[in-house]
Amino acid sequence: MCELLAMSANVPTDIRFSFSALVQRGGATGVHTDGWGITFYEQKGCRSLHDPNPSAHSELAKFLKAYPIKSRLVIAHVRKANRGRVALENTHPFIREMWGQYWSFAHNGQLKGIKKRPLVHYQPVGSTDSEHAFCWLLDQIRIACPKRPSDARLKRIVAEAYGSLRELGVFNALLGDGHALYASCSTKLCYIRRAAPFGRASLIDEDMEVDFAKETTPDDKVIIVASTPLTRDETWTVVPPGSTIVFRDGERVD
Amino acid sequence: MCELLAMSANVPTDIRFSFSALVQRGGATGVHTDGWGITFYEQKGCRSLHDPNPSAHSELAKFLKAYPIKSRLVIAHVRKANRGRVALENTHPFIREMWGQYWSFAHNGQLKGIKKRPLVHYQPVGSTDSEHAFCWLLDQIRIACPKRPSDARLKRIVAEAYGSLRELGVFNALLGDGHALYASCSTKLCYIRRAAPFGRASLIDEDMEVDFAKETTPDDKVIIVASTPLTRDETWTVVPPGSTIVFRDGERVD
Repeated sequence: MCELLAMSANVPTDIRFSFSALVQRGGATGVHTDGWGITFYEQKGCRSLHDPNPSAHSELAKFLKAYPIKSRLVIAHVRKANRGRVALENTHPFIREMWGQYWSFAHNGQLKGIKKRPLVHYQPVGSTDSEHAFCWLLDQIRIACPKRPSDARLKRIVAEAYGSLRELGVFNALLGDGHALYASCSTKLCYIRRAAPFGRASLIDEDMEVDFAKETTPDDKVIIVASTPLTRDETWTVVPPGSTIVFRDGERVD
Repeated sequence: MCELLAMSANVPTDIRFSFSALVQRGGATGVHTDGWGITFYEQKGCRSLHDPNPSAHSELAKFLKAYPIKSRLVIAHVRKANRGRVALENTHPFIREMWGQYWSFAHNGQLKGIKKRPLVHYQPVGSTDSEHAFCWLLDQIRIACPKRPSDARLKRIVAEAYGSLRELGVFNALLGDGHALYASCSTKLCYIRRAAPFGRASLIDEDMEVDFAKETTPDDKVIIVASTPLTRDETWTVVPPGSTIVFRDGERVD
C-alpha cells in the first residue's frame, strides 16, 4: 500500500511541515520505500518531482524540505509497490494534459481487472494499476466533455468514475487539475481544515512542531488531506469509505 | 531567444559538466534569465524540473549541479522570453504522453502564425509559440500514426513537420521520446560526439575542466547538442540551417 498527501489552499502555502511527515513514512516510520513523488501547482504550471529511492533517504526530498515552494494545490505520494516494479515511471503522481490543463493523480490500493478497461486518449507509460486507472479516468471525462464543462458537471463525472473504480478494489485517490482536488476514499483517507485562529501542531512521525499563527495571515485557509493523521494535537476528519469529496481554495466544496 | 542543450548517450551519463555551462548562460554569461528546465529520461520514466527563476541564481539548478542524475537522453533549456510571460507554465521542456511514451520538447525561436494552426489531441497550458508548436507537432505525428510506426517512418514524419515549422520563422528545436533525439536547425545548433579515446575539455562559460577519460569506459558514446559550443578545446560540428538530424544511443543515425 502507499501513503497519500495533498493540500488545497486559498493562498500559496508552504507544505514542508506536512511533507516532512510523509517523507518519514518512506523508510523511517513507514515501509513505503519504493519511491515517492510530489506535484506543486503554481498558477497554470506545475512542477512534478519524482524519485524511485525511499523518501526518508532521498537527496531530492532533503532538498525540498529546505526549499520552500509555495503552492495552492499539491499532491504527493510515497509508494509501497504491489503492482509494477520499482522504477521512476511507476512513481506517482502521474501527469497528463487535458483541455490545456495539467492533471495530476496519485492512488493507494489495488484494482482488480482495471487493465482490461480499454483506453482511448491516454496510455500508461509504466506498469501500475494506478496509472491505467488514471488514464481510464481522464478518458471518461474527456469522452463525456470534449471541452471543460461546469464545475458541477465535472464533479458528477469524476464521482461516477470514482464509484466505478471503487468497485474494482481499493481506490483511495487524489486527482488535481490546478484548481480543485478530487479525493476518493475507499478504505482510509482523512483531512484537516486550518483557518484563523491558527494554533500549534506537532507531527506524529517526526519531532517537529509548528505555530501556524506565525506562518499565516488571518484570511488563509488550508486543507491537508492524508491517508492517516499527520499531527498528534489536531482533530482530523475521517472521510467515510465509499465517498468522493472535492476541495478548492482551502474549502470543502462538494 | 533561448539556449538549448541536449545529450544522447549509449550508457547512463552525467550531464552536469555541460549543464553547468548552460546554467551560466541563464543570468551570468548570458541574458536568458526568464526561467529554465531540464528533462532526464531514465528507462521509460522521466524527471522534468522547471524553474521560472534565472538558472544562474536558481537553488534548484545549484542542487542539480551537486546531484548526479545519470541519463541516456536529456533535454534542457534556458529561456529569454519573447512570446509568453515569465511563468512556470511557459518554461521548456514541455512534456506530453503519446503511445505510452513521454515526449519532451524545447525550442529556440519565434514562429509567426503558429497559433492559427488548429490542434486536435494536445492543447498548450501556457502561452508560448513553442508549446503550441509542440502540440501541433505531436498532433501531426499522432494523426499520421495512431500507433508507433517504424523508426524510419517516424523520422520522415518529424522531418516533414519540422520543415513546415521552419517556414514560420526560427525553429531551432529538440524533441525526445526516451530513445531518439530529433533536432531541428533553423539558424544555430551544433553538436559534439565524444567516444574513446576520451580527452579533456574546458567550459567557455565557467572555469571548469573535465578529463572524460576518468569519467567513462572505452565503450561509452555521448553526443552533446547545444545552441553554440560549450567547450573551448574541442571541435563542434555546426548543423546546417534547414536540416533535421536524429541522434540515438550517442550516435547520429539519420
